Amino acid sequence: MSEIHQKPIPNLPKSDLPKLVILGAGFAGLKLARNLKNQPFQVILLDKNNFHQFQPLFYQVATAGLEPSAISFPLRKIFHNSKNVTFRMAEVARLDADRKRVFTDMGFLDYDYLVLALGADTNYFGSETIEHFASPMKTVSEALYIRNKIISNYERAVNIERMEDRKSLMNMVIVGGGPTGVELAGAMAELRNNVFPKDYPELSFKNMKVVLIEAGPALLGTMSKEAQEHALDYLTKLGVEVMVETKVKDYNGKVVSLEGGEILETDTLLWAAGIKPNKIGGFSDEMFAPNGRILVDEFSEVTGMSNVFVLGDGSLLKEDRFPRGHPQVAQTALQQAENLAKNLLRDKKGQPRKPFRYKDLGSMATVGRKLAVVDLPFFKFQGFFAWLTWLLVHLMAILGVKNKLFIFLNWSWNYLSFDPSLRLLIKPRYVRASERKEPIEQKTTD
Amino acid sequence: MSEIHQKPIPNLPKSDLPKLVILGAGFAGLKLARNLKNQPFQVILLDKNNFHQFQPLFYQVATAGLEPSAISFPLRKIFHNSKNVTFRMAEVARLDADRKRVFTDMGFLDYDYLVLALGADTNYFGSETIEHFASPMKTVSEALYIRNKIISNYERAVNIERMEDRKSLMNMVIVGGGPTGVELAGAMAELRNNVFPKDYPELSFKNMKVVLIEAGPALLGTMSKEAQEHALDYLTKLGVEVMVETKVKDYNGKVVSLEGGEILETDTLLWAAGIKPNKIGGFSDEMFAPNGRILVDEFSEVTGMSNVFVLGDGSLLKEDRFPRGHPQVAQTALQQAENLAKNLLRDKKGQPRKPFRYKDLGSMATVGRKLAVVDLPFFKFQGFFAWLTWLLVHLMAILGVKNKLFIFLNWSWNYLSFDPSLRLLIKPRYVRASERKEPIEQKTTD
Repeated sequence: MSEIHQKPIPNLPKSDLPKLVILGAGFAGLKLARNLKNQPFQVILLDKNNFHQFQPLFYQVATAGLEPSAISFPLRKIFHNSKNVTFRMAEVARLDADRKRVFTDMGFLDYDYLVLALGADTNYFGSETIEHFASPMKTVSEALYIRNKIISNYERAVNIERMEDRKSLMNMVIVGGGPTGVELAGAMAELRNNVFPKDYPELSFKNMKVVLIEAGPALLGTMSKEAQEHALDYLTKLGVEVMVETKVKDYNGKVVSLEGGEILETDTLLWAAGIKPNKIGGFSDEMFAPNGRILVDEFSEVTGMSNVFVLGDGSLLKEDRFPRGHPQVAQTALQQAENLAKNLLRDKKGQPRKPFRYKDLGSMATVGRKLAVVDLPFFKFQGFFAWLTWLLVHLMAILGVKNKLFIFLNWSWNYLSFDPSLRLLIKPRYVRASERKEPIEQKTTD
Repeated sequence: MSEIHQKPIPNLPKSDLPKLVILGAGFAGLKLARNLKNQPFQVILLDKNNFHQFQPLFYQVATAGLEPSAISFPLRKIFHNSKNVTFRMAEVARLDADRKRVFTDMGFLDYDYLVLALGADTNYFGSETIEHFASPMKTVSEALYIRNKIISNYERAVNIERMEDRKSLMNMVIVGGGPTGVELAGAMAELRNNVFPKDYPELSFKNMKVVLIEAGPALLGTMSKEAQEHALDYLTKLGVEVMVETKVKDYNGKVVSLEGGEILETDTLLWAAGIKPNKIGGFSDEMFAPNGRILVDEFSEVTGMSNVFVLGDGSLLKEDRFPRGHPQVAQTALQQAENLAKNLLRDKKGQPRKPFRYKDLGSMATVGRKLAVVDLPFFKFQGFFAWLTWLLVHLMAILGVKNKLFIFLNWSWNYLSFDPSLRLLIKPRYVRASERKEPIEQKTTD
């Protein structure tokens, strides 16, 4: 992965303030940095990308509904007017808690406070072949890759004579019945129902399958019975084949074999079945829970380290209500960051820290173009109004007026035209060997 | 390049109409296909991309002002409602004029009429090292690559301690004083003047150079003296170092050596110095002019072949006014396509063809955020009003209401905010060896 330079990261602004280093600019890391804007800390934010990614809408990038730029936010721009926040694009490799030092591919950094907000990556549950052949969707690049793969599969399919030989290029199998899988399946089904037949009049789409596979007994396992049943109903109406209590045994790039022995032919296996927290070196094994999350106390501080905190998907706070940890969703990350920001300021003022208390604000998932399911703590509803609610909530959560405006226009346009217009197979420019030494090439090819 | 399948391209709609095959969906090819919508021809349009690219705005993609999708148009969408037009994504390799057959990487095609509209690629005038290390901008992918390269260079620069060692990452050298070079230089200078200092407060931009090199005696060689002088004046005011009558001898990826012996340090050499027509096999040498353009008659028909036509950059019609051929610009391509479409229909009706007559509609170039130079046949003007004219003309030329709307909003936004917001270093997902067999991977890596 990252080579570790044995020199300090240079050109950081001089400051007498305590140095707070945040690793990762996802929901948790970005929220914390923003809440500490112009506060008495020198905040240094590291991420391997120079932008924040809005994960809840990846599926719309994958299905040609939104541009990557619509849901990606340049981090330097976010902190233009906050002198105490510095961003660096770097990959973190290892922590040395005794020396209070983190090592990255751009050099090392010494800290007074360290916050790990590294998020999670796709979990293939140990299957190397699935990891090798399936398409994950945990970054905007991976979402864009899915879009390109699907379009190129169709451009190939039209040039294949026998329908039998085309099938695996046209079928789509999505594994994982959580919100991501449900939203992907719905959007893919609508592409098949409304868009592809117009794009590829030469092809017949009656036998094109969109299959959604869930290992558990129901879709949207964490949501209410009503939500689960409506989501299933909506997907079925869109022509998605939903298979619950079904496990994928293996995938060779062409054929998915299920544990029941059944097989599904597809070139496109979208894997949204699970996540595992991103790790860096420097933690002892007993600091991790079995699921790879780092054990923290009610102040998000790592048990056994001082002034090292973990937020979001990678943290595990044992609580009676959540014996196996809080849900690994944006809400948890945002609320933990909010709480930590306040506690850090309380430390400064010599006030006692307040423990983190998770507040369930509810959850929602959208199915296709005008239906959704919404669970609020004391109120559940589904259908068109739920979809409008989903739109509104996500629009509000999007950073920046421009992105809000452009996404709103895109959604209105796609809704009215029934035709997401981003079916572009834009191929990355050929990367020359001579250029592979550059970080950007390195990261795209190593 | 492309493997040539010895089988016909399958799944084409049956038709008794004469088969017109168009190679290339640039300005000429797309215009011809659109003018023959629902006319008595079976039109088969081939392009190696599944979208049309609006070249005049590549420089805005390269300088983070516009998204690739804003200037790329899915070809299948354009022809949703024209039953007689079929699109295929394919790379053309060779023509067999005697058998009236073209060979592509997706199979071969037989034609009654063949139209080459293959456009042109970057011309390095024989320098292999420049071709190897310089960045061209003849596709939207190359434009995006330039954006990523520049941003990654800056992310690297902030992590380099000594200013001396940063220089070549920060400097930009643009070769070619035509509209593309002028527009690139202006936009780059504005990034340096207005955007980068806010993004990279750690760096000093006084010694960051933006250099524009032109071999001829003046910028915008084909335009009026007024236009040339104003463009030079505008660029100089933006802080661009303009060097005319200067030739680049060589470039090693770090240092540009000029023929005068002078050198310029830069990691970023943008090459907009010349073009050469794209070629396919099957033409005899005497059919080409020295500059690689194919000789055609006043009906754009290749001299020595029947029913084979060439449009746009690749065609050369000798005319008293244009002894060395018409200007290789969008206007020529569009007017030739217009004329050919009419002549093909005249053929059908047994009417005589009308010869092509080039009508100069003028030319324009924009310099930075609110200045431009415009030459109309009987009227020349420059400055802010010229810039508004430039905006309007290009907005009108853009396909599709949605793209018009989004580009207009983007431009208004960037103009008011002084801050193009697309500074995202989105890296293509790692392409696995196992996937390289797929066309998309093949094209990105062959």
